[in-house]
Amino acid sequence: MNTQVYAAIDIGGTKIAGALIDDAGEVVERTELPTPARESASRLSATVDRVIDALAAHPAWRAVLGMGIASAGPVDTAAGTVSPVNIPAWRSFPLVESVRAHPLVSGAIDPVLLGDAVAVAAAEHWRGAARGVRNALCMVVSTGVGGGYVLDGALHPGPSGNAGHIGHIPVDLDGPPCVCGGRGCVEGYASGTAIARHAVRLGWRPPAGREATAADVAVAARAGDDRALAAFDRSARALAAAIAGSATLLEIEVAVIGGGVAQAGDLLFAPLGRHLRGFAVLDFARHVVVRPAELARDAGLVGAAAAARSRVLDGGAPIAAE
Amino acid sequence: MNTQVYAAIDIGGTKIAGALIDDAGEVVERTELPTPARESASRLSATVDRVIDALAAHPAWRAVLGMGIASAGPVDTAAGTVSPVNIPAWRSFPLVESVRAHPLVSGAIDPVLLGDAVAVAAAEHWRGAARGVRNALCMVVSTGVGGGYVLDGALHPGPSGNAGHIGHIPVDLDGPPCVCGGRGCVEGYASGTAIARHAVRLGWRPPAGREATAADVAVAARAGDDRALAAFDRSARALAAAIAGSATLLEIEVAVIGGGVAQAGDLLFAPLGRHLRGFAVLDFARHVVVRPAELARDAGLVGAAAAARSRVLDGGAPIAAE
Repeated sequence: MNTQVYAAIDIGGTKIAGALIDDAGEVVERTELPTPARESASRLSATVDRVIDALAAHPAWRAVLGMGIASAGPVDTAAGTVSPVNIPAWRSFPLVESVRAHPLVSGAIDPVLLGDAVAVAAAEHWRGAARGVRNALCMVVSTGVGGGYVLDGALHPGPSGNAGHIGHIPVDLDGPPCVCGGRGCVEGYASGTAIARHAVRLGWRPPAGREATAADVAVAARAGDDRALAAFDRSARALAAAIAGSATLLEIEVAVIGGGVAQAGDLLFAPLGRHLRGFAVLDFARHVVVRPAELARDAGLVGAAAAARSRVLDGGAPIAAE
Repeated sequence: MNTQVYAAIDIGGTKIAGALIDDAGEVVERTELPTPARESASRLSATVDRVIDALAAHPAWRAVLGMGIASAGPVDTAAGTVSPVNIPAWRSFPLVESVRAHPLVSGAIDPVLLGDAVAVAAAEHWRGAARGVRNALCMVVSTGVGGGYVLDGALHPGPSGNAGHIGHIPVDLDGPPCVCGGRGCVEGYASGTAIARHAVRLGWRPPAGREATAADVAVAARAGDDRALAAFDRSARALAAAIAGSATLLEIEVAVIGGGVAQAGDLLFAPLGRHLRGFAVLDFARHVVVRPAELARDAGLVGAAAAARSRVLDGGAPIAAE
């Protein structure tokens, strides 16, 4: 087996996925297990170990040059720990140490940890809509809103791996309280949850017997429902303010938007473009381009591989894996 | 003369200053001329030349290792041009080329251009309140609001030198139109101009025969005037939102605030600290520290020297000046 590959693990609230990804970003092998999200810390890490076991059974494993681990946040990449909101048993859990203790990793592979939204930015920069862009913001708009930056051509995770938390910047001084404890955060307007809630507040109702979702609001908006359209417009406006802020602060050239809400397509992107012209007005900021994400389901895995690859290319000790 | 020095020029709407600054950041020589702000482009550049002539008359000039030019913005550092708002004859003026054409610079010194607020950030990072800080925002709050970033221990001017334009990020989706063409910008709440305007709107009046200024509002606030206090609180709240946003997006550890409005001291910093606790709430962001700037009048010059010094230390061709 000559192809050099990177091992990638993506830890979310519902599944723990693993992949071997080659130097071109293609997925050579993929596996996943359900996250035992309500179980003990050790059951959780045993599940990660089983994902690694499954990857190691593939012949390409012997060509592994490095490993990246994307995890739901908050993370602390300096400490190597994770505290995923939806995985209560892991609080400041030493995930890097735990993976390093796996017999097939130990002494052979030094894993690099990154937050899941930062991983998406790494993936879009390597293989997706931010390819070749030196300064980009990549956002994930789904039940929450996350993000990551590429600055000066490189991923910018920040000292603890949490840079790019664009869902929780204030865009409305008198806005509603946010689950984070702040006020007027982007997420409170832009997330799928916020879209559904706002449509209901305006009098829209989901199909009988269903919880309101942004996908249902999108169906209603496509059918011309004003309340549904208003909810998407409100989301788009907050996203536009956040993107304009990033362009003004960091001269980002491209903003990539992925996540479930981006699936609404023009329902989101059309008003977003309109509002952006109102907020991003300075000469160096107003040309910022908004693009839909290109990588969907495996973005976290591809991004974890990208981070591992960057470390190897940047001269972090290349790794001879067993 | 053994001391190695950096030449610095600071171009503003009222004066063009020049200095020779040693490797410890001390000003060895300083000179300035009034900016002929309403005159022709060539009169303006002749004034810059005269400032350089004055510096070159000092014996330390022969030890010049590099030159930094800080200019009122907008700038385009990639193109080497400036378009200062208050200097109408300079629009996309090739300032770097003009300085390079000076006989004592030509072929000997390769000047580095930066925006004035970015220069302040460079100065505070080198010799002021952000010394030793790896991730910092430095803001200048006066008639307008500007800023600059230090990220990963280095100045982050962005591709065209305009990164850190924190006065023009939206913090209020339904906020008032801004002079920049946007809406709800930080500057519309936080600047000295905004403070004076808001106090007047609330019914406060400046001393007879005077234009309302933030300094007068500060005097009234110290005497307990509720309207004056409210105007400072409103400024502090917008600054807090902007700082919280930066901490959340970039994990900045320190926010330095300078400029005339910062002279108000606790009138500004006390409500700022209070509001910041409401906006900067995520674990990795809530420890951000706000500090008053340490460098006052010569910050632009010191920052221009800092940028020249960084270029020399980073291996940009060291320069043997005449």
